[in-house]
Amino acid sequence: MMRAAKAPSPAGLSYVGEQMSRMSGLRRLMDDIATSTAGDRADEWLNLSIGNPASIPAVETMWRDLIRHAHAESFAEAGQYGPSRGTPALLSAIADYFRDRLGWMIGSENIVIGPGSQMLCFIAAALYAGPGRAGPRRVLLPMTPDYTGYQGLCTIAGGIAGVESPPVAEEGRLFRYVLDLDAAALPADPGMLLLSSPCNPTGRAVTPAEQDGLIRIAERLDVPLFVDHAYGQPFPQIGPTQAPPVLHPNVVNCFSLSKAGLPGERIGFAIGPERFITPIVSFLSNSVLHAPRLAQAAVAEGLRSGAIDDAVSTAIRPFYAERRLLAEKLLLSAMPPDVDWRLHANEGGMFAWVWVNEGWFDDLALYRQLKERQVFITPGRSFFTAAPRPGQHCTQCFRITLSVDEASLREGIRRVGLAVSQARPPRTPPSSSDDCEETSR
Amino acid sequence: MMRAAKAPSPAGLSYVGEQMSRMSGLRRLMDDIATSTAGDRADEWLNLSIGNPASIPAVETMWRDLIRHAHAESFAEAGQYGPSRGTPALLSAIADYFRDRLGWMIGSENIVIGPGSQMLCFIAAALYAGPGRAGPRRVLLPMTPDYTGYQGLCTIAGGIAGVESPPVAEEGRLFRYVLDLDAAALPADPGMLLLSSPCNPTGRAVTPAEQDGLIRIAERLDVPLFVDHAYGQPFPQIGPTQAPPVLHPNVVNCFSLSKAGLPGERIGFAIGPERFITPIVSFLSNSVLHAPRLAQAAVAEGLRSGAIDDAVSTAIRPFYAERRLLAEKLLLSAMPPDVDWRLHANEGGMFAWVWVNEGWFDDLALYRQLKERQVFITPGRSFFTAAPRPGQHCTQCFRITLSVDEASLREGIRRVGLAVSQARPPRTPPSSSDDCEETSR
Repeated sequence: MMRAAKAPSPAGLSYVGEQMSRMSGLRRLMDDIATSTAGDRADEWLNLSIGNPASIPAVETMWRDLIRHAHAESFAEAGQYGPSRGTPALLSAIADYFRDRLGWMIGSENIVIGPGSQMLCFIAAALYAGPGRAGPRRVLLPMTPDYTGYQGLCTIAGGIAGVESPPVAEEGRLFRYVLDLDAAALPADPGMLLLSSPCNPTGRAVTPAEQDGLIRIAERLDVPLFVDHAYGQPFPQIGPTQAPPVLHPNVVNCFSLSKAGLPGERIGFAIGPERFITPIVSFLSNSVLHAPRLAQAAVAEGLRSGAIDDAVSTAIRPFYAERRLLAEKLLLSAMPPDVDWRLHANEGGMFAWVWVNEGWFDDLALYRQLKERQVFITPGRSFFTAAPRPGQHCTQCFRITLSVDEASLREGIRRVGLAVSQARPPRTPPSSSDDCEETSR
Repeated sequence: MMRAAKAPSPAGLSYVGEQMSRMSGLRRLMDDIATSTAGDRADEWLNLSIGNPASIPAVETMWRDLIRHAHAESFAEAGQYGPSRGTPALLSAIADYFRDRLGWMIGSENIVIGPGSQMLCFIAAALYAGPGRAGPRRVLLPMTPDYTGYQGLCTIAGGIAGVESPPVAEEGRLFRYVLDLDAAALPADPGMLLLSSPCNPTGRAVTPAEQDGLIRIAERLDVPLFVDHAYGQPFPQIGPTQAPPVLHPNVVNCFSLSKAGLPGERIGFAIGPERFITPIVSFLSNSVLHAPRLAQAAVAEGLRSGAIDDAVSTAIRPFYAERRLLAEKLLLSAMPPDVDWRLHANEGGMFAWVWVNEGWFDDLALYRQLKERQVFITPGRSFFTAAPRPGQHCTQCFRITLSVDEASLREGIRRVGLAVSQARPPRTPPSSSDDCEETSR
């Protein structure tokens, strides 16, 4: 009977339902990748599109031990509902940790723990964007490209606005997106600002000056600036982030344990002024209730004992630093030298972000060509809020993960270089004007 | 600096934000209870208001073993993001389990696993209620009183409507709420129907005829009927539920592992037609991503091995059956015999629901009087959608949990009886008409 039920249809869905049940372009690709790489011949695929953190044995061992410890010491907690703000043990471990490491004087009232920082950002978007007494507000992404998941946060159609950061060439094959502070200050209707730093996908981290500029905008509008440190300080601290997280009456800092190796258990938290944190706690208690408790116990012990700090400094940071250098070397060797391609400067994060500054390049075409070579990369267009247009910057980029094993990275990037070479249109040999006239007929 | 931040204020919140950051009356009480029962003298309190399942050693041992097993066998999953629909292992365990136990022929397309069934109901309310192409729709609770958490689900003010079930006296001290099918069929704007069966707080379970009546309404409107089996079949199966869950093109069945002993780890799932399940999966992937993976692995093993079924039949059902009989006996002995009080018939669930059918009785006054005696019960008004009015049914009920230890239940109910006796106004002795005239001046 169930199989004969009516086909999925938007009939009956609210506007929110239509918005939230939409498959984004990237989600369709992820389904394509999951389908292709499942099954008997999964090993033949080189998947450079994944968002999972690298499998690092020392990190896995640390989490295995921490969860075993939580199971032995705190198992009774699994049998009880917990507070929506988070367990007292983890709240107090977080307050102590940030006091010791960053000098922050915060209490539980400034902290909320949730099942992943994405859920906290989703809640923030519901709280601070959409229709309200002050008129309709939007979530402003002040530096796009940025994490594509942000575009799925808002339950209101058109509720997300992005400000494109212009790409600026740097020495050698590098480039960097630079915050266009004037453009970011223009929209009058942001209910909140949101950015990842270091950024997924680009690896860009805000400079102290850029961070100050964004804070000035948030202050002027008196809205929260949510800064997503999923790849930054204090963990997993991938890359040479310049601007450490700051405490400020208009800043909410989001942290995640996912890229420090525990994505499957869904623990993230936010630290900020009580007036922004309290409504998030209420929303949690109305929806998901609270984050899982054993994982909270494991994280509390990992923060208190210094185990997470040790893993960051001895395993996670060195791993990604090495992978990044390798990816740079491999791209230099694999990409055709006469193509104008550039790599975003290394300021942190788990990805290499490549820009092919050529009119003929199309990110989705590259995706398809590489799929035929059994390689998956992530086309760049989904990370921009602008509509994709051929020949424009937003269709000229792609993302490669640094978290796969070295052999896959080597062979994958080799095939990327081949595919880009083949995508390049053939050079037309010098020809007479007659020929030109003939071919143009 | 953080402590000096501005006081919490609705300024800047969207309408959704104002709605979702509101503290319900019950939440304020829960804070009161948490504050009172925390600290050094916590043991002196008898808390009959808790929503946690009972601590049953055999059940705790089962989950402890299942999670240890998941840690040993599936730990690598914690280091990877998972599918938003749920892990393949748990999806397939659920499909097999419901095929074997209830004969349901379902596949993964009919199932979604989430971090608790409350989150799934929250998502359903966002998908199927609120403004939409067909006009504004509401969540209809066709049998109130019902779970107070449902009233926090809807992000839209006024988005929840309830139909009061009339209380009908049964033999002895019992009564039962009866579905008013005509009243439930009247509202033209439901986007979905939602009820718990067995019900928190009342213990009422729908009869097969009531269930059929609700399905007819859902069919006519072509909206989903969400049935929350958190206390019912197949687990934890507390009480003699008459109507087993049914597969139907308009029914979505929600199940939870919380009352089977694992509330802290947040695992629930829904089974229904693909057209209603698919949008829930998309919403999950835009918000909380997925349920925690180790707990999913533990539940999969618990379903496959029969361990959960064993715990239900040998530990959970007998425990609550015994507690229910004890509570009935204690109430009969403690409550003043000349007060018209009644207990809801035992059809399942984890609570005793008492109705004091007297004009002078007030649930909130009883809460306060019992707090002075270091006992907490849950006043009944929050479970009704109607505004509380003195002397009406909705302020004449209270809830007692069956999940505390026996000594607390004994002493707690004894004090409940004393408090009700003292709340009863003194009988006026027969007096002359002169006296009456004097006092009335």
